[in-house]
Amino acid sequence: MIKIGIITASDRASAGIYEDISGKAIIAALDEYLVTPYEAVYRVLPDDQSTLEATMRELATMKCALIVTTGGTGPAPRDVTPEATEKVCQKMLPGFGELMRQVSLQYVPTAILSRQTAGICDQSLIINLPGKPKSIRECLDAVFPAVPYCIDLIGGPYLECNEANMKAFRPKS
Amino acid sequence: MIKIGIITASDRASAGIYEDISGKAIIAALDEYLVTPYEAVYRVLPDDQSTLEATMRELATMKCALIVTTGGTGPAPRDVTPEATEKVCQKMLPGFGELMRQVSLQYVPTAILSRQTAGICDQSLIINLPGKPKSIRECLDAVFPAVPYCIDLIGGPYLECNEANMKAFRPKS
Amino acid sequence: MIKIGIITASDRASAGIYEDISGKAIIAALDEYLVTPYEAVYRVLPDDQSTLEATMRELATMKCALIVTTGGTGPAPRDVTPEATEKVCQKMLPGFGELMRQVSLQYVPTAILSRQTAGICDQSLIINLPGKPKSIRECLDAVFPAVPYCIDLIGGPYLECNEANMKAFRPKS
Repeated sequence: MIKIGIITASDRASAGIYEDISGKAIIAALDEYLVTPYEAVYRVLPDDQSTLEATMRELATMKCALIVTTGGTGPAPRDVTPEATEKVCQKMLPGFGELMRQVSLQYVPTAILSRQTAGICDQSLIINLPGKPKSIRECLDAVFPAVPYCIDLIGGPYLECNEANMKAFRPKS
Repeated sequence: MIKIGIITASDRASAGIYEDISGKAIIAALDEYLVTPYEAVYRVLPDDQSTLEATMRELATMKCALIVTTGGTGPAPRDVTPEATEKVCQKMLPGFGELMRQVSLQYVPTAILSRQTAGICDQSLIINLPGKPKSIRECLDAVFPAVPYCIDLIGGPYLECNEANMKAFRPKS
Repeated sequence: MIKIGIITASDRASAGIYEDISGKAIIAALDEYLVTPYEAVYRVLPDDQSTLEATMRELATMKCALIVTTGGTGPAPRDVTPEATEKVCQKMLPGFGELMRQVSLQYVPTAILSRQTAGICDQSLIINLPGKPKSIRECLDAVFPAVPYCIDLIGGPYLECNEANMKAFRPKS
């Protein structure tokens, strides 16, 4: 069974001050996109860099093909998700952050404040998403067409999408 | 009184070979954008990385909410403003550079040569602008809508804009 | 005589498993763009980071004004061209990668997987291009208008383009 990690970085959600709707929005999106069955490995964590790094590494060791984070991408001192991502990844993929910011810019000029990025940790693709459920979906819709092929390239499992909801692209070579 | 730093990086302007019109163009733009009164802390410096770093740190220590630089963002050996910025910042904000290059690309194909970036140094937002007054205004117009909210997020003072000249955006949360 | 380096990074092409058509596509594009005569310094190498770095440094020492690479920019473990480029360069030029990904995104959503970048190594401008001949041309067409001026700024030779095929831009200053 394919595993996908979902990490919510939020001091307040992890303390139980409010419910994590962001992580659940990611799972809902993945359920729509994918026909391949998968197991969601879901964690809600405080905005603590070493905790985030340890969890990303743990999920990579568990062979999660994809690890999607939400939250902690802004300029505030407690926002450290991109730092944690960069620390655990062997390769960074700047095109993900560029495209997600460009898409979000169509809705809000503060999209440039998001430092979200993506990278490869062992055989896992890690993608940072913003914290707000609406922005999560806009960003994930924009980058997901490239996700299955990226996972192919790093030696991960073959993900198949529900064509009606998400058109994955794999170049003929 | 809110403080805003303006740093002109230019060997020739700092040597008095010509007048710094770039720094003055930034102050003119800020005067149009802001209704909140502010004190401009204005410096004209040579393109020397350690001088630029020391001045950025000094202005951050003086609690400048915003530090705007002009010049030194190109590929030439003496262009070191982005290096200095990266050195003093705890967090980089790649979305600023991406958007500014995209805007400048509408005017000149050489916009891709600009390495301008932005980041957070303590409680100051530092933004690099290009050296030419015309490009300064294009770039600042593009990113400034996100500036007041960014300063909110890093614990700085509340900046208010003159809506007729600059529409700052603060998401309702 | 002006020198331009062309480096193909490909395990299979360097092993003679197939012919390198990518490097040849770059030379064909340069022949169309440039009226200034140049000598092509052409190398086909395996996807090995230290070999790529050594060759980039060698070509910079030979005073190649421009070094164009093809291949090795994806997320796979053997893709290390951007890492080698970053290692040998004193300055990175993120605008090149941003623009090339944006252009490629008009054709394929997997363009965000390319980590291609550009930078300055001594007096050489290094530009990474993707591996596929079709994408090579799209990317090179997009960034080349800024190349001659960039080479001016780093103290390299004056490149002149055939206006019918490539409009180089040099700002009046």
